[in-house]
Amino acid sequence: MQFARWVSEVKPSFLPMILKATAQPHVISFAGGLPAPECFPVTEVARAVSEALDQQGSRLLQYSVIEGDPALRAALARHLTARSVPAGPEDILVTHGSQHGLDLVAKALLDPGDAVLVENPTYHGALEAFTPYRPRICPVACDSEGMLPEALAAAIRQERPKLVYVIPTFQNPRGTMMGYARREAITAICRDAGVVLVEDDPYSDLRYRGEPQPSLRHFWDQVVYLGTFSKTMAPGLRLGWVVAPPALLPAFKLGLQANALHAGTLVQRVAATVLESPAFPAHLAQLRKVYGERMAIMLEQLRLHFPAGTTWNEPEGGLFVWVDLPQGVKAMDLFHRAAEQGVALMPGQAFFAGEGGEFSMRLSFSNSTPEQLRGGMARLGRALAQLQTSR
Amino acid sequence: MQFARWVSEVKPSFLPMILKATAQPHVISFAGGLPAPECFPVTEVARAVSEALDQQGSRLLQYSVIEGDPALRAALARHLTARSVPAGPEDILVTHGSQHGLDLVAKALLDPGDAVLVENPTYHGALEAFTPYRPRICPVACDSEGMLPEALAAAIRQERPKLVYVIPTFQNPRGTMMGYARREAITAICRDAGVVLVEDDPYSDLRYRGEPQPSLRHFWDQVVYLGTFSKTMAPGLRLGWVVAPPALLPAFKLGLQANALHAGTLVQRVAATVLESPAFPAHLAQLRKVYGERMAIMLEQLRLHFPAGTTWNEPEGGLFVWVDLPQGVKAMDLFHRAAEQGVALMPGQAFFAGEGGEFSMRLSFSNSTPEQLRGGMARLGRALAQLQTSR
Repeated sequence: MQFARWVSEVKPSFLPMILKATAQPHVISFAGGLPAPECFPVTEVARAVSEALDQQGSRLLQYSVIEGDPALRAALARHLTARSVPAGPEDILVTHGSQHGLDLVAKALLDPGDAVLVENPTYHGALEAFTPYRPRICPVACDSEGMLPEALAAAIRQERPKLVYVIPTFQNPRGTMMGYARREAITAICRDAGVVLVEDDPYSDLRYRGEPQPSLRHFWDQVVYLGTFSKTMAPGLRLGWVVAPPALLPAFKLGLQANALHAGTLVQRVAATVLESPAFPAHLAQLRKVYGERMAIMLEQLRLHFPAGTTWNEPEGGLFVWVDLPQGVKAMDLFHRAAEQGVALMPGQAFFAGEGGEFSMRLSFSNSTPEQLRGGMARLGRALAQLQTSR
Repeated sequence: MQFARWVSEVKPSFLPMILKATAQPHVISFAGGLPAPECFPVTEVARAVSEALDQQGSRLLQYSVIEGDPALRAALARHLTARSVPAGPEDILVTHGSQHGLDLVAKALLDPGDAVLVENPTYHGALEAFTPYRPRICPVACDSEGMLPEALAAAIRQERPKLVYVIPTFQNPRGTMMGYARREAITAICRDAGVVLVEDDPYSDLRYRGEPQPSLRHFWDQVVYLGTFSKTMAPGLRLGWVVAPPALLPAFKLGLQANALHAGTLVQRVAATVLESPAFPAHLAQLRKVYGERMAIMLEQLRLHFPAGTTWNEPEGGLFVWVDLPQGVKAMDLFHRAAEQGVALMPGQAFFAGEGGEFSMRLSFSNSTPEQLRGGMARLGRALAQLQTSR
């Protein structure tokens, strides 16, 4: 028995370690990017399912069209266009979550050895989605606004990539936000070079302060845009979408047909109903309020409990705070020390395609109550201080 | 812009042609393998959703574990073991339908150029799932029981395949059934050669006559077994499963994590509830009754309306009848002639990796009422007679 080559090339995942650390019920986890279940629209989903089955019954349990439910695609097109993401229903492919969207992009475009440019650090799930296609992952230097235009231009010249992958809004893991000029510059470079630019946008509805910026698709209609209901509605539905230019869409659709046929018929209708419900804007506002408060508490606790030399960003939205540890303190050491004290974090290495991140960590505030945030951050600060002392 | 190599190597799909032919509401379609929506357990699904959300609420809208809902895996293990498919919960991975299972098997095992042995003809969806991994698809000669052991042994020696893919029970498209001795022989050959044997089993609950045979896993515990709820519960849930040996499971799980994270949390719980419901055996019995009657009508109509020289099998179960047309009549010609008269069929070529099937067609009876079967088969027989006359 012999596996496909990529199986032996997989970078060891931090996931088993994280799962082990968070298995005990008393553990406070800042590791995952899980939304707060107490904010899920359970009542709306329950009502939408029962109405949908009453009205359309068996049609929602049957096979459906590959590209996705027409009502959902129409609702998404309206919703996206209103948010500076130009999209008609015919430009949208519904997926089993945005992880599936990442897979479809890679499947349609990548042969072994093709180059993919990514922010450094970047979303570990994107690295995992790309890995089976055996591309060369080429990290591009970033600053507090994300990918640096000159570094991107140089990497395109040098690597001749098949695609460029960015998270311009509340980046995972660093929480950074691309400004208007940076968005324009990044997009222009990819357009001029004729490189596929993939914009992953799970978080832009979760803005707690500052001004929104238009999506990269606003600057170039050939941008591939990935979205998801996982952060704004419910990840358990497993629903996301790809907005793609007409030249790419048929290949993405071929990939979708080949690997999953189509997203769930019933859950697509449920998502369309919830998205179109008059209560949905208030639901989003409530999410922003809850997460904004939690982020503020996490930042306050960092100031209160973390030793000098620790630095962090203050994001305008999203789910993550990126923390650089004091000189010489390794995130893996902190991970183990914190685990003993019942706190989980995500070591920075998880987000680097190559070396890097050894002295940083990502903290997520969305899945912890204010009490857990206060208790957990105090314990984490204490664990860090102990580590410094013992060095 | 340049696609991955496989995109240009895709065999043109019959799907767009079929979709066009079946778009008009008056068309009677024997083309797809769609289950009968009037048999879907709509009430049971509606009740299961509302109970699940009442009792477990937001937990069912949250992310879940990659391998699948523990309750569903436990229910599947009991259900499968009772049906001669030895499986513990820990051997099962829940997928987004069995198309997704096919993708995971290919993803974990295939590099470009690797050989895959398939029945000839075989399920077109499996060919579509394998294609992006760019294997050499090697068809193996079959008789009325499926793959011929001597042909399989020779092909293994010659091609040194990574995997062998078979549908032993009510094969798609030919409806054939492997007997006990054939199952034993096919399994022994793969076991002795150390080749991964994949058993696709969507139809074994849909037996209308004859005796059941044990699954291939009964003969060898290293068989990879694919199942689905699409034919027995509801395809719109998009739920299937892979049963795999411990040596393969971690690679399948890596692939699942990379391309979709996990199957829908809510729909998994719903499927577990419906599967464990005391009413489910009666639901299956009802399905068998309805489909058995429909198959009998289709076979009767073949005898009544089809010209001499037409031959077909009489399956013991499943959804399909395979028809060989009279000498020299091409299935594509019949497809177009029948489309003019409002009947859709699946041309045989769709199921052949290479040449073949030009003079055969697959007819599905499951999605047509008795009236549609009588009317549609009479029209189809007439179209065939006209084609013969005009030659």
